[in-house]
Amino acid sequence: MENRTLIVNGVERVVVASPEASLAEVIREQLLMTGTKIGCGQGQCGCCNVILDGKLVRSCVTKMAKVPDFADIVTIEGIGTKAHLHPLQLAWMVHGGAQCGYCSPGFIVSSKALLDKNLSPTREDVREWFQVHRNACRCTGYKQLVDAVMDAAKVMRGEMKAEDLMYKLPADGQIWGGVIPRPSALAKVTGMCDYGADVGLKMPAGTLRLALVQAKVSHANIKGIDTSEAEKMPGVYKVVTHKDVKGNNRINGLVTYPWNKGDGWDRPILCDEKVFQYGDAIAIVCADTLANAKAAADKVKVDLEELPAYMSASAAMAEDAMEIHPGTPNIYYIQTIKKGPETQSIFEQAPVIVEDDFYVGRQPHMPMEPDVGSAYMNAEGKLVIHSKSIALYVHALMIATGLGLQPTDLVMIQNPSGGTFGYKFSPTMEALVGAACLATGKPVFLGYDYHQQQTYTGKRSPFFMNIRMAADKDGKLLGMETDWSVDHGPYSEFGDLLTTRGAQCMGAGYDIPAIRGEGRTVCTNHAWGAAFRSYGSPQAEFASEVLMDELAEKLGMDPLELRFKNAYRPGSTTPTGQAPEVYSLPEMIDIIRPKYQAALAKAKANSTAEIKRGAGVSIGIYGCGLDGPDTSTVVLELCPDDTFTLYSTWEDHGQGADAGALGTLHQAFRPMKVSPDKIKLVMNDTSKSPDSGAAGGSRSQLVTGRAIVAAASLLMAGMRKGDGTYRTYKEMIADNIPVKYDGTWTVPATACDELSQGSPFVVYMYGVFLAEVAVNVKTGETQVEKMTLVADIGTVCNRLVTDGQLYGGLAQGIGLALTEDFEDIQKHSTLIGASFPYAKAIPDDMELIYVETPRPEGPFGAAGVGELPLTSPHAAIINAMYQAAGVRITRLPARPEVVLAALQKR
Amino acid sequence: MENRTLIVNGVERVVVASPEASLAEVIREQLLMTGTKIGCGQGQCGCCNVILDGKLVRSCVTKMAKVPDFADIVTIEGIGTKAHLHPLQLAWMVHGGAQCGYCSPGFIVSSKALLDKNLSPTREDVREWFQVHRNACRCTGYKQLVDAVMDAAKVMRGEMKAEDLMYKLPADGQIWGGVIPRPSALAKVTGMCDYGADVGLKMPAGTLRLALVQAKVSHANIKGIDTSEAEKMPGVYKVVTHKDVKGNNRINGLVTYPWNKGDGWDRPILCDEKVFQYGDAIAIVCADTLANAKAAADKVKVDLEELPAYMSASAAMAEDAMEIHPGTPNIYYIQTIKKGPETQSIFEQAPVIVEDDFYVGRQPHMPMEPDVGSAYMNAEGKLVIHSKSIALYVHALMIATGLGLQPTDLVMIQNPSGGTFGYKFSPTMEALVGAACLATGKPVFLGYDYHQQQTYTGKRSPFFMNIRMAADKDGKLLGMETDWSVDHGPYSEFGDLLTTRGAQCMGAGYDIPAIRGEGRTVCTNHAWGAAFRSYGSPQAEFASEVLMDELAEKLGMDPLELRFKNAYRPGSTTPTGQAPEVYSLPEMIDIIRPKYQAALAKAKANSTAEIKRGAGVSIGIYGCGLDGPDTSTVVLELCPDDTFTLYSTWEDHGQGADAGALGTLHQAFRPMKVSPDKIKLVMNDTSKSPDSGAAGGSRSQLVTGRAIVAAASLLMAGMRKGDGTYRTYKEMIADNIPVKYDGTWTVPATACDELSQGSPFVVYMYGVFLAEVAVNVKTGETQVEKMTLVADIGTVCNRLVTDGQLYGGLAQGIGLALTEDFEDIQKHSTLIGASFPYAKAIPDDMELIYVETPRPEGPFGAAGVGELPLTSPHAAIINAMYQAAGVRITRLPARPEVVLAALQKR
Repeated sequence: MENRTLIVNGVERVVVASPEASLAEVIREQLLMTGTKIGCGQGQCGCCNVILDGKLVRSCVTKMAKVPDFADIVTIEGIGTKAHLHPLQLAWMVHGGAQCGYCSPGFIVSSKALLDKNLSPTREDVREWFQVHRNACRCTGYKQLVDAVMDAAKVMRGEMKAEDLMYKLPADGQIWGGVIPRPSALAKVTGMCDYGADVGLKMPAGTLRLALVQAKVSHANIKGIDTSEAEKMPGVYKVVTHKDVKGNNRINGLVTYPWNKGDGWDRPILCDEKVFQYGDAIAIVCADTLANAKAAADKVKVDLEELPAYMSASAAMAEDAMEIHPGTPNIYYIQTIKKGPETQSIFEQAPVIVEDDFYVGRQPHMPMEPDVGSAYMNAEGKLVIHSKSIALYVHALMIATGLGLQPTDLVMIQNPSGGTFGYKFSPTMEALVGAACLATGKPVFLGYDYHQQQTYTGKRSPFFMNIRMAADKDGKLLGMETDWSVDHGPYSEFGDLLTTRGAQCMGAGYDIPAIRGEGRTVCTNHAWGAAFRSYGSPQAEFASEVLMDELAEKLGMDPLELRFKNAYRPGSTTPTGQAPEVYSLPEMIDIIRPKYQAALAKAKANSTAEIKRGAGVSIGIYGCGLDGPDTSTVVLELCPDDTFTLYSTWEDHGQGADAGALGTLHQAFRPMKVSPDKIKLVMNDTSKSPDSGAAGGSRSQLVTGRAIVAAASLLMAGMRKGDGTYRTYKEMIADNIPVKYDGTWTVPATACDELSQGSPFVVYMYGVFLAEVAVNVKTGETQVEKMTLVADIGTVCNRLVTDGQLYGGLAQGIGLALTEDFEDIQKHSTLIGASFPYAKAIPDDMELIYVETPRPEGPFGAAGVGELPLTSPHAAIINAMYQAAGVRITRLPARPEVVLAALQKR
Repeated sequence: MENRTLIVNGVERVVVASPEASLAEVIREQLLMTGTKIGCGQGQCGCCNVILDGKLVRSCVTKMAKVPDFADIVTIEGIGTKAHLHPLQLAWMVHGGAQCGYCSPGFIVSSKALLDKNLSPTREDVREWFQVHRNACRCTGYKQLVDAVMDAAKVMRGEMKAEDLMYKLPADGQIWGGVIPRPSALAKVTGMCDYGADVGLKMPAGTLRLALVQAKVSHANIKGIDTSEAEKMPGVYKVVTHKDVKGNNRINGLVTYPWNKGDGWDRPILCDEKVFQYGDAIAIVCADTLANAKAAADKVKVDLEELPAYMSASAAMAEDAMEIHPGTPNIYYIQTIKKGPETQSIFEQAPVIVEDDFYVGRQPHMPMEPDVGSAYMNAEGKLVIHSKSIALYVHALMIATGLGLQPTDLVMIQNPSGGTFGYKFSPTMEALVGAACLATGKPVFLGYDYHQQQTYTGKRSPFFMNIRMAADKDGKLLGMETDWSVDHGPYSEFGDLLTTRGAQCMGAGYDIPAIRGEGRTVCTNHAWGAAFRSYGSPQAEFASEVLMDELAEKLGMDPLELRFKNAYRPGSTTPTGQAPEVYSLPEMIDIIRPKYQAALAKAKANSTAEIKRGAGVSIGIYGCGLDGPDTSTVVLELCPDDTFTLYSTWEDHGQGADAGALGTLHQAFRPMKVSPDKIKLVMNDTSKSPDSGAAGGSRSQLVTGRAIVAAASLLMAGMRKGDGTYRTYKEMIADNIPVKYDGTWTVPATACDELSQGSPFVVYMYGVFLAEVAVNVKTGETQVEKMTLVADIGTVCNRLVTDGQLYGGLAQGIGLALTEDFEDIQKHSTLIGASFPYAKAIPDDMELIYVETPRPEGPFGAAGVGELPLTSPHAAIINAMYQAAGVRITRLPARPEVVLAALQKR
């Protein structure tokens, strides 16, 4: 232990710390300045950036031994505060730079360090700076961050006034369709937003810190767990194992379809009989400090009988493979699709047939914030769980029985969350902290490190797909045959639903009269399958969208025109036999056409012997919601001070739930002309807010949006007077009219049947992607130079939010196409190992064009947005690469070595 | 446990806390926003003020159960930051509002709440606001705080620019004699200054929290200590008792004079055989949390045989009293004074003789910050102790043997300290945390609550005095006889030195040719005697200054003229036979005379039947330093960036050590014209800075000031070139000239001998006090309406600092005169119980007049300052009360019931 005087944000402070502690730990855990975030903890993300003696450093890898006495340290807290925002913070807010916001403090500090050196950077200077300093953002696609730095620099150079940068309410007072910064932006850009680790650090003294004992093998029988030595370690309160879990010790996978062969009770909270995958939690050490908990975790002895590990769908489907969950076949779910007439004869007669195999891999979510949770008993005796859950009420259902409770015994609270992109549809953390709290009777906190985040949260499930298309000689699609196997890892959570997505998405966008196919969910020992943005469609649509290009080539047609010819028009039906709610694809293709043609010409002109450029397109479609009927409830209250409080569980991945709720209610209130600052949002706490459903499948803006409109209608009906004016709170009370209303809406949809037919969604999102790429034929490296997306997401609630969703999704699509993977558990367990896309991997040139076709069922015509940009951008990239260099990669990611090998095979 | 959303400084934060926790605990310990301080923890000091939903609240007594969800909370961190100071913060800095600074956040928040309601308050409005909201300050005397609020309001009303309020370096660049804010002011007014409790909260995870097992009786034999049950309590690491202390388990009282009958080894670190006073520490429970430590402390069983408690000097001196420390007489030190001829014949022949008994009580220091400390082992294996120590190297000496270490095995660090006023000359806390750290091998933290602060830190030692004066008929003093007994409590720490102060101070200021007397230090079972501002003189000079008024009355002379007649003039000697270094008292009396006469007239004019007004005077004198030779060392370094670093252990009570060091070095550097921002101070850490001695007896400005001048001279000599310019760091290195120099100075003084004769100080401070009072003869309540102090403290280093010292000392003098006490251990164990003076007890009208007689030995002519204002202001008040209402109170404090009783006896 040493004492250091540090000049923190201009003020001398003394801190006593171990020389081995990182500066980030000292800043966060000792100074409790939690604006500095720890993301990867390995110097690979920049969330922990501070300026140390004038130099930008990643504080998580800066040991205190290297921090000199009297070092000058600038953290986000020293850059600006609410009352005096730094131009960078202001610019970050108005450009939507803070989505989940977890990276924002690190980026802003980084940008400050850049502008301290160079107040007139070019956009490329900014990108280069972010790249070199490893500032990672998973939400935005970086473009808005560069925009923000450029504008902040203008303000700092005196070329723009800060006031001119600020958001101003339009003269008509309408925020719908505008760019009002999300309510949470201020807290995020000032470092004041408390994420889970921050909440954990701020828990009362006596909160137990948890460390997991995890499996280091992928499949094994457990013969014994010996905690005796660990229990004697210093600071240990208890070592919790499955024996301490009072319920059935299972997380319910919530089987969706009755023809699922599993019962959903396959996943232990703490392993009892078997280890099913690497990282599986076997015990939880509860101690006074994390260091003590970890030291004791190393002393828990687990006696394992290792079993063959089935690390892919094909391995698990092999004849001789044992049942991973004894009693349930490894292929536990089969989804058939039958649309229209039999395809056999169509294929026998069709003039043109194409067929190919495709594989889309185990994309890791890679949020900046690793998973985190805390739990405690409240005064009512309920178990309160804080986590990143994006499905609060659903998770209570999934874990209550396992813990030995009723769902109503649980209070679920979502902390501000540093990105989930879907992985937090799995309540692993929630069950673990709940079990530890119940077993010890103490408040508990558990935070994953990034290795745990990568290896022990769910991943996108790989699809192994074979797909055939038949067309007439003019390119009109006649039929499609599909076969797909989903490697869903060992746990069934929503695995059946995902497999059905294959049926819904393959061939989506096109009027295909006849479809036959079968998909299957396969239990393996690789990472369990979790929800991931656009769930199912990036796999399924990759296959059909690349095959469409193959078909166009075979036909000698332009790929865009082939799509134009077959795109949904009145009379068309989706693969599930549903009539689309709008038919905007032809219009969207018309918009992209000149851009696509120009891109082709430019690519040709700019290609060299080494760098081959090309352009490719794809169509992407995704339904807003969960399949079939789906309900959301909100509560709206007129408060004594004549403000309004909206209670909802519109969970936030970082997508902008607060902006969505605010914008929708504000629009619903337009007749009353309510100023946005009169609307308070109480969100994501089941003790305070009703069940608005999970935040998945771009359902919230639609379903919860409609519930908000319903509640507003009821309240306004109560408030409206005969003369068209509105009652105040006092008048409502005087007139004995209720001031609090439930708003509820249920989607009028029908779930798909066993043959995948139905009308599962009443609103879809439509996109046309154009990718422009440069392939280095010497290295195999591909650079995406521009992405264009024509999006029809209905009318737009908040353009800042939807831009952010679209840019960010495109960036993830680039990662999915070219680099990201989680096949090798060790190699891919870090951001760099899993090829996280840094700034220069994402083009600064991304163009968004909105076609705002109002949705009849959407609130004020809005659809969702979040899934759309990741439906098929990777297909456009792969198609562009073929157009550029003549290589068609059908197995993602298209890493340089894969591309090189394909180039050599040409 | 409940979760709450709180809007903290404009930003939503979620916190999980017990409904029983106080808002202050949550803000500090959970949000770790340590700008909000906890002083008394009982709602009596306002250090914890925050604005809750627009209302000023004391957060230490606001339970979380009473804090509504979504409550809006403003803390000091939300008021302003370094980059954007609130006008209140700026005004606080430039008016010297932050001395120790511990109360500053609470006052600034309080003032903000006032100005939010009333932007044009009168001074009385401000004082009333502070009074009603119990904003307590122990350093300033409140006047500067009112000044600050008035100026801040002007700025906020637009009547003054913030820039006009700011300190500006004078055109000639000189800061000596000016009003530059102390370097630490910024951190204090922004809440960024880390006091001991803040350092403790910021210690690494795993730091043990300590709770003391303390005696609840005042005198007992210990028959057994049973820790077995406590050791089994949750979270307990170890219960430390005397058996775990490796050394001799004693704090050395550092005997000063060889004729002391004690050896200084009387004080146990942890009681082994006996309990000597209420609160004595018997065991230390070391646990993971404070709550667990306290719960376990309740389970330690101590088997006591209670003994008669001697709660006053007279009780302990009784014939049948047992020896409190067996083997050492209760009267363990006797100090005789013999100056000039025998007094017996003088008194037999003198035409006028007066005699009276006086008592000055057990004044508690009542700092805003309760005592606090932490300890850990550093990488070199040294025991590092952080505390409020104002005597770092001395304390290492005092506790090392007890702990079983060499003094060099210790690193002593002073945290920024929220007021000590001398009590931190006792190293109790240091020994306790040191023992706990050594016994556990873990970092440890201990903070006292206010009950512990009051009952288990040293107090001013009561003097029981009898004094006689003989004068001729013209009032010329002929002789003095004195007898005094010092109730020093059970521990000998510096008790002999204190008793000698009685000899030095009784009759100080006057040329008394013959003095005889005897004082004695008495061991009792009441609170141990600790250093307290003006150490000894408030007791001794009270006796002689009130007796001077009795003499004047007997002579029919004006009390001021009697003083003028006898005041030191060339040829006079002090009671110790020393020739004063300057003779400014007659000039000072000349200055006060017209003010005194006007005050008398005004008092007469404004008296009513119920309210009697009067004016009184006194002279106060104190020597700068410890008796006799006394050395200070500093180190001064020219740094590679051509700045200067001054290393010293000029400890800070809040008096402004940093301003003193900066001002003195800056002045010494005048030939080089160094800007103040080029001077860095490394202070109060024995691992970094040399032994500059203790911060006591107003010695630092003199002794360390001279050491600084010495170091500056050496460095400048090295830097000076032939042409009169100065070398840069590079040039020094190139010319092979050292860049780092020790500066040392030893006071050329001689300690007093057994007869109290000697020249113990080479520089004295002189003051003439004028008090104007109003006595309510119906209630006995006395209000001081004005204090005037003519002060000769030599030339002034920093006027803001010296004003602050003088105002603050006067305020403590008012408390000493009228209210403050610690006689009743239970009743007086709180601020209110001990009658802490709030704003309205201290007059807004306080006038300071400087007579700057340069001191030949002082650095640039400066003396010290801190002790002067508390030498005898209470005597002036008591004299004024007599002049007003004809009651002469000789036993302090002159509480209303005492005054009423005396009025009735008239």
